[in-house]
Amino acid sequence: MSGGRQAVAALRAELRRRGLQGFVVPRADEHQGEYVPPSAARLAWLTGFTGSAGTAVLLLDKAAVFSDGRYTLQMPEQVDTAIFECLHISDDPPAAWIAANLPPEGALGYDPWLHVESDVRSFEEAAGKAGGRLVACGDNPLDAVWADRPAPPAAPVVAHDIAYAGRDSADKRRELAAALDEAGRDAAVLTLPDSIAWLLNVRGGDVAHTPLPLCFALLDREGRVALFIDPAKPAPGLGAHLGNEVSLAPPEAFGPALDALAGRTVQADAARTPAWVLSRLEAAGASIVRERDPCMLPKACKNEGEIAGARAAHRRDAGAMADFLAWLDREGPSGRQTELSAAARLRGCRERLALFRDLSFPTISGAGPNGAVVHYSATEATDRTLEPGMLYLVDSGAQFLDGTTDITRTVAIGTPTERQRACFTRVLKGHIALATARFPADTTGVQLDALARAPLWQGGLDFDHGTGHGVGSYLSVHEGPQRVARRGGEPLLAGMIVSNEPGYYEAGEFGIRIENLLLVREDPDFPEMLSFETLTFAPIDRRLIDTALLTPAERDWLNAYHRQVREIAACEDPLWLDAATAPI
Amino acid sequence: MSGGRQAVAALRAELRRRGLQGFVVPRADEHQGEYVPPSAARLAWLTGFTGSAGTAVLLLDKAAVFSDGRYTLQMPEQVDTAIFECLHISDDPPAAWIAANLPPEGALGYDPWLHVESDVRSFEEAAGKAGGRLVACGDNPLDAVWADRPAPPAAPVVAHDIAYAGRDSADKRRELAAALDEAGRDAAVLTLPDSIAWLLNVRGGDVAHTPLPLCFALLDREGRVALFIDPAKPAPGLGAHLGNEVSLAPPEAFGPALDALAGRTVQADAARTPAWVLSRLEAAGASIVRERDPCMLPKACKNEGEIAGARAAHRRDAGAMADFLAWLDREGPSGRQTELSAAARLRGCRERLALFRDLSFPTISGAGPNGAVVHYSATEATDRTLEPGMLYLVDSGAQFLDGTTDITRTVAIGTPTERQRACFTRVLKGHIALATARFPADTTGVQLDALARAPLWQGGLDFDHGTGHGVGSYLSVHEGPQRVARRGGEPLLAGMIVSNEPGYYEAGEFGIRIENLLLVREDPDFPEMLSFETLTFAPIDRRLIDTALLTPAERDWLNAYHRQVREIAACEDPLWLDAATAPI
Repeated sequence: MSGGRQAVAALRAELRRRGLQGFVVPRADEHQGEYVPPSAARLAWLTGFTGSAGTAVLLLDKAAVFSDGRYTLQMPEQVDTAIFECLHISDDPPAAWIAANLPPEGALGYDPWLHVESDVRSFEEAAGKAGGRLVACGDNPLDAVWADRPAPPAAPVVAHDIAYAGRDSADKRRELAAALDEAGRDAAVLTLPDSIAWLLNVRGGDVAHTPLPLCFALLDREGRVALFIDPAKPAPGLGAHLGNEVSLAPPEAFGPALDALAGRTVQADAARTPAWVLSRLEAAGASIVRERDPCMLPKACKNEGEIAGARAAHRRDAGAMADFLAWLDREGPSGRQTELSAAARLRGCRERLALFRDLSFPTISGAGPNGAVVHYSATEATDRTLEPGMLYLVDSGAQFLDGTTDITRTVAIGTPTERQRACFTRVLKGHIALATARFPADTTGVQLDALARAPLWQGGLDFDHGTGHGVGSYLSVHEGPQRVARRGGEPLLAGMIVSNEPGYYEAGEFGIRIENLLLVREDPDFPEMLSFETLTFAPIDRRLIDTALLTPAERDWLNAYHRQVREIAACEDPLWLDAATAPI
Repeated sequence: MSGGRQAVAALRAELRRRGLQGFVVPRADEHQGEYVPPSAARLAWLTGFTGSAGTAVLLLDKAAVFSDGRYTLQMPEQVDTAIFECLHISDDPPAAWIAANLPPEGALGYDPWLHVESDVRSFEEAAGKAGGRLVACGDNPLDAVWADRPAPPAAPVVAHDIAYAGRDSADKRRELAAALDEAGRDAAVLTLPDSIAWLLNVRGGDVAHTPLPLCFALLDREGRVALFIDPAKPAPGLGAHLGNEVSLAPPEAFGPALDALAGRTVQADAARTPAWVLSRLEAAGASIVRERDPCMLPKACKNEGEIAGARAAHRRDAGAMADFLAWLDREGPSGRQTELSAAARLRGCRERLALFRDLSFPTISGAGPNGAVVHYSATEATDRTLEPGMLYLVDSGAQFLDGTTDITRTVAIGTPTERQRACFTRVLKGHIALATARFPADTTGVQLDALARAPLWQGGLDFDHGTGHGVGSYLSVHEGPQRVARRGGEPLLAGMIVSNEPGYYEAGEFGIRIENLLLVREDPDFPEMLSFETLTFAPIDRRLIDTALLTPAERDWLNAYHRQVREIAACEDPLWLDAATAPI
C-alpha cells in the first residue's frame, strides 16, 4: 500500500512546485472516524504506517511521523526510518516538531478537510514560532501525486429496518429539530457518518467493519435534512424510505448549501468537523455555535428496539463463541492450530449466524507472548502455533443487522501455571465488580473505572488501557461519549452500551482480558439508581480461576452467569458446554 | 454582628453619594480562605448570613444573597428576606441576577481586593448585558459606613519550630526559586497565608481555628522573600528566625513592590489572587504567568518531620477521643447530656493534651435528626438532649503544634435499630475499602471515590458530600489540591494527608459518618504503588456493626485496627477501651 521513497520524492517535488516547504498528512479523513477507506489512507501511502491514529509532517529535507503508545513498536517496523523520525504524539507533538524544524519563512501546507479547528490553531502557532506560516491547500498536493489512488468507496446505502432501528427517523428528526428551535438555531451541520446513519435509519459500507455511509448532512429547525452523498450510493428505493423531508444532493452541493446559511445560526461540532466547513460557514456570514453533534447522545442511549436487538444479537453470538471455544478445547493443545487458523475458525462460526453482516473489527488472536500485545494483529510472519502451557487471548465481534458484538476470552491451552491463574482470577474479580456495580444517576465512567482495577491493584497489577468503551447498534464498535476509563468520561445514562474489559499483560509471557458488553439500565431493585445488564454470554475458563481467591458473592455471580450461558448459547457440543459452565 | 436594615440603608446612601447603583459584597477577604477575621466579615455585617461561602449584590432598590446547597436552610433564617432574595449560587448565579436587575447605565461597584479575575470578568459581562458597567472601587464603600467595624487582627506571628516543620525555610525557598529560575520567571506573588506560613516556617493567629498570619509576600528567583505584614504582628525574635533573605515591610509597601516588577516575568495564581494585584502588575508593565501557587504542592506533600508530627499528634488525640467516648458511653443514655455539653466535654479532653493550641474547626455535635444535617452547628436554640435510641455524630479535630487532626465517630445511644446498623455497616465497608486501597501513581481522588461509595450504592444509599479532603500540618484542616470526590481532583502523591469520611444521612432520623485521616505513602509490599496509612485511632462503635454484612477481610481489618487503637490510645478507662476494641 505504501508508495515508499517514490511517494515521498513525488510529494516533495509537488510541494516545491507549489512553493510549499512542508505538508501535514493526518491519518484522518473528512469524517474523523476510526476507519478510513483505501482512497483516504494517505498516511499509510506516504509512510507505510497503518495504525489507526497518527500524523506525518513532511518537510523538504526532513520528516516525522507521530502516533501513540499503542504503536511505539509497530511504527518503526512499517516506516522507512531513514526518511521519517518516529515520535510519540504526546511526548513529542507535531506542533513542537514543526516549531523546531520548519525553516524560517517556510510555508507549511495542510488540507482543511482533514483537520479540525484545534489542529489548525496548533499548527498555525507552531509555524509562527518557526518564523513561517501555515497555508490551507485548496486541493490536496498528496492526492495530486498519488497515481494509483483507489477510487473513493461507493457502497450501497440501504434502509435500516425500523425493526432494528427501533424508532422512526422522522421522530428522531423532530426531536432534534425541536431542540435546535428551542435553542434559537437554524440548522446543524452533520459530518459524522454514524450520526447521519442513526438519524436517517440507513446503513452503508464505505469503510471496513462498520456499516457507514460516508456523506455530509444539514438538519434544519423544521426537521428537514439535506443529505450530500455520491449519487451512486443510494440503493433503489432509498428515496421512498427517506421520505419528502430528506433531500439528496451530490457532495459538490455541500459547499453552496453552507453558503446559503448566510445570516443563520448554525450548530457545529468543532471538535469533529473539518475546519473547511467552519471556515466556509464563517466566510458565508453564518453565526456558528460550537456544540457537540446533536445525534451523539440520543444515538448512545439505545431505544427499546435497539436494546431488544442487542440482546438477540448477543444470544446468537453466544452460540458461535461456544462452538468456537468447544473446538478450541479439542484442537488447542494439538499443535495443529495457529493464531490465524483459530481466528478463521471463529469467523466461520459467526458467518453462519442469522443477520451476520461482517466482523465488527479485525480479530485479535494472540497466543502466549502475543497475547500481551494489546493491539496485536496476527500476520503470516508473526503467526504463532497454539501449544500447551500458553494462554490464548481472542478479542472479536460481529456486526449483525440487529446489533454489534465485542467479546474477549482468555483460554488456557493445556494446564495453566499458578501465576496465570492468580492473575486471571484478579482480572475476573475486577470484571465482576464492574458488572455488578450499582450507582446513582450522574455517575461517570471515570468514577467506576477503579472498581474494575482495585482487585488487580491489590496484587500490584494494572492494565494500560481503558476499562470500557461505548458500542453502537449495528454501527461503530467504538462509540462515544460513554466510556469507563482513568480520565474523562461523562455520566452513564440508561440505554448506553459499554464494554467491561479489564486485563493484565505480562510482557513476553501472556495476556489476559475478559470482556463482556454491558447495558446501562434502571436498577430493578432501586429504580432511582442505575446498574448494568450483561449482554454477552460465553463461558469464562474455569481452569484459570483460583476459587479460593473469590468471595462467596463473586462465586455466586460466576455460577449464575454460567447458568445463563448454558441456557442461552446454542452450542453444537452441549456436553462440552455443560462442563464448561458447571458450578465452581 | 449584622448591621441589619441600618447597614443596608447606610451602604445604599454611600453608594448614591458615589454615583453607584450597586455593590458586590463577597464572603471572601483578600486571601480567599475558608475563614475570615471579624474585620472582614462584610457579608455577615450586611446580611446576617454567616455561611462560609456566598456573595451579596446590593442595588439601590433590591438585593440578593447567594450561597450553595449547604446553606439553603440557614440563609433565609439569618437574612432579612424583606430586603434580600435568597438564591442558590449555581442555579441562580450572581451574574445572571446582575444582568437581569442592574438598571441600564447603572454603575456596579466592587472591591478588587476581594475578588479574583474570573469573578470580575463574569460581573463585567453581566453588567454589560444589563446595559450598565462594572466599576472597581479604590476604597470599599461598605468599610466607609461600617461604624463599629472590628480592628483587623494582629495576632503574633511566631516561628514554627523545625522540629515540627521538618524542613528548613531556606531549603524550601531555594527549591522554589530554582523552579522559578528554570521556568524563566523573576518572581512569584504569594497571597495565600497558609502558603506563606509553610514557606517561612511561621504561624500566626489571625483567623479562627487555623494558625494563619494574614499577609502577602513576593518570592524572587534567588530565593529571597519580601514579606508584607502589619509590623505589630512579628513576635520578638522572628527576624532572626527568618534570616537575612527575608525582608519585612508594612502592607502599604506591597503595591509599590509590585510596581517595581515592571518588565519582569511574575508568576501568580489567578484563581486565588485578588484581581487588584494582577491589575497593579499589569499596569506596572510586568509580564504575568498565571499558574498555581508554587507552595501548594510541596505543602501538600508532607515531609518526614511533618509525617512524624502527624503520627504523634494523632496518637495524643486518640487518648482524648477514647476518654470522651468512654464518658459518652456512661453519660449518653442518662438524659443529662446535650449536643453542647458533649462538645464541651470533648474540647476539655483535648485541651489538656501536650502541644494543643486550638480546635481545628467548630465541633459538629449532632444527636438524632441533627446528625443528618451535614454542616450542623449546635446552638442554645437547637441543642438536643442525647437519648436512648438516637445515633450521635461528632466531627471534631485539634490544632496541635505538630499536626492537625479531624475525626468523626457515630455512636449508638442505647440500643440501635436494625436499619441504623445496616446503614452504619455499609458506611464502614466503604471506609475500609478506601483505607485499604492500593493504587498506581497518577491515580486521582475521583478514581478512588467510588471505592468508598460502592457498598452504599449496593444498598441503594449514597451521601451528598466529598469522601475526602486534604489536611494541612498545623495549618488548614481543609487543604488542596488533594481530595477524594465525585469530580475533579488530581493525582494523589506520597506524603499527602486526606480524610476518609463516607457517610449516610436519613433526613429527620439520623446521620452516620466515619472519618479517619489517611497518609498517602509508598506501598510497603509493592513499592511502585501507593497506599494509605491510617493516622487516626479511636474505637468504631461495635454495637452499630452487623458482622454478617462484613467480609472476612473487612472483619480482619476492623479487628487489627481496634488492636492498634487499644495499644495507642492512652485512655483513663482501660477496661472500657478493652471492651470497645474487642475483636468481633
